[in-house]
Amino acid sequence: TAKKKLIFGDRGMTLEEEINESNKYYRSHEVAVIYKKPTPIQIVKVDYPKRSRAVIKEAYFRQASTTDYNGVYHGYYVDFEAKETKNKNTFPLKNFHQHQIDHLRMCQKQGGICFVIIKYVTLKRYFVMPADNLFQHWDAQKHEGAKSIQLQDIVDCSIEIKANYDPTLPYIDAVQQLIESGKEKQ
Amino acid sequence: TAKKKLIFGDRGMTLEEEINESNKYYRSHEVAVIYKKPTPIQIVKVDYPKRSRAVIKEAYFRQASTTDYNGVYHGYYVDFEAKETKNKNTFPLKNFHQHQIDHLRMCQKQGGICFVIIKYVTLKRYFVMPADNLFQHWDAQKHEGAKSIQLQDIVDCSIEIKANYDPTLPYIDAVQQLIESGKEKQ
Ligand SMILES: [Mg+2]
Ligand SMILES: [Mg+2]
Repeated sequence: TAKKKLIFGDRGMTLEEEINESNKYYRSHEVAVIYKKPTPIQIVKVDYPKRSRAVIKEAYFRQASTTDYNGVYHGYYVDFEAKETKNKNTFPLKNFHQHQIDHLRMCQKQGGICFVIIKYVTLKRYFVMPADNLFQHWDAQKHEGAKSIQLQDIVDCSIEIKANYDPTLPYIDAVQQLIESGKEKQ
Repeated sequence: TAKKKLIFGDRGMTLEEEINESNKYYRSHEVAVIYKKPTPIQIVKVDYPKRSRAVIKEAYFRQASTTDYNGVYHGYYVDFEAKETKNKNTFPLKNFHQHQIDHLRMCQKQGGICFVIIKYVTLKRYFVMPADNLFQHWDAQKHEGAKSIQLQDIVDCSIEIKANYDPTLPYIDAVQQLIESGKEKQ
């Protein structure tokens, strides 16, 4: 609605919508080429009506093997998952699937820039958390560690980003920081 | 069939199947992480039967905005389109869509390694053609150039790859060559 649109940084969008809008901005300004991957579908039955386009009549959702987003920025391969929570403090690790962790690990090993964008919906706070920190928490929970991450832990290890207009969510600034801090480590 | 499987380098697979098998090999051997993108589908109607998984009852194929494949190899972003022809000489440019060319151009500008894998089905020959050469032919046809590329032109500008067992199609060898020749140019 018009009223909602006036509220800066909260236009009732989901995190996915905010990232998709940002990606559009980044593509049109030649900053980065990053897309959301389509949901994988197993198609069983398709009708081909005369003089009209094909209709899928039976299909099923399939488990994705990868993360939500990937693409290229300044020669770097970028790969990330987007997650939101209504919680005000803890972020439950059950929001992640094993295949997402595995995929991020493989991409990181290949030299990709890998991370998670976490949105605290109620707090209106957004974080770019490096995949390494996610792996630490994920592995710890398997050895009697906590089943969720505390907000303060996320604050400590992540780059916080602020919702904006153009782009809606300037997460590439955080990607640039991740690249620079990676170079320092070498 | 069993007999077909014995014929080296021609197991009746489509180019897409050959690339998908190769990608599986490359992932399991930690050479590269490259996936085919799912076909984008516009979902209109979904049934949620009790005690059984969701069934998509009405959906339509959507135009993809990108190419078939992307991923990461040795820190490089890799992006390509796969095309096959039954022709024995000319490769028709109408096999490509404008959005695929645009996408490859954008990714190349961002420093990605961009190319096409072309399979001459009848000749059983496979080529990794750099995106730059594709762009040349594509742009030329718009100014009264040929509407197709001659096999000899493809031979001259591409890296030929041979079908094999593991991986089925060792196209990453060609990617490595593209990276090295790119470095020499700098
Ligand atoms: Mg997600
Ligand atoms: Mg194709």
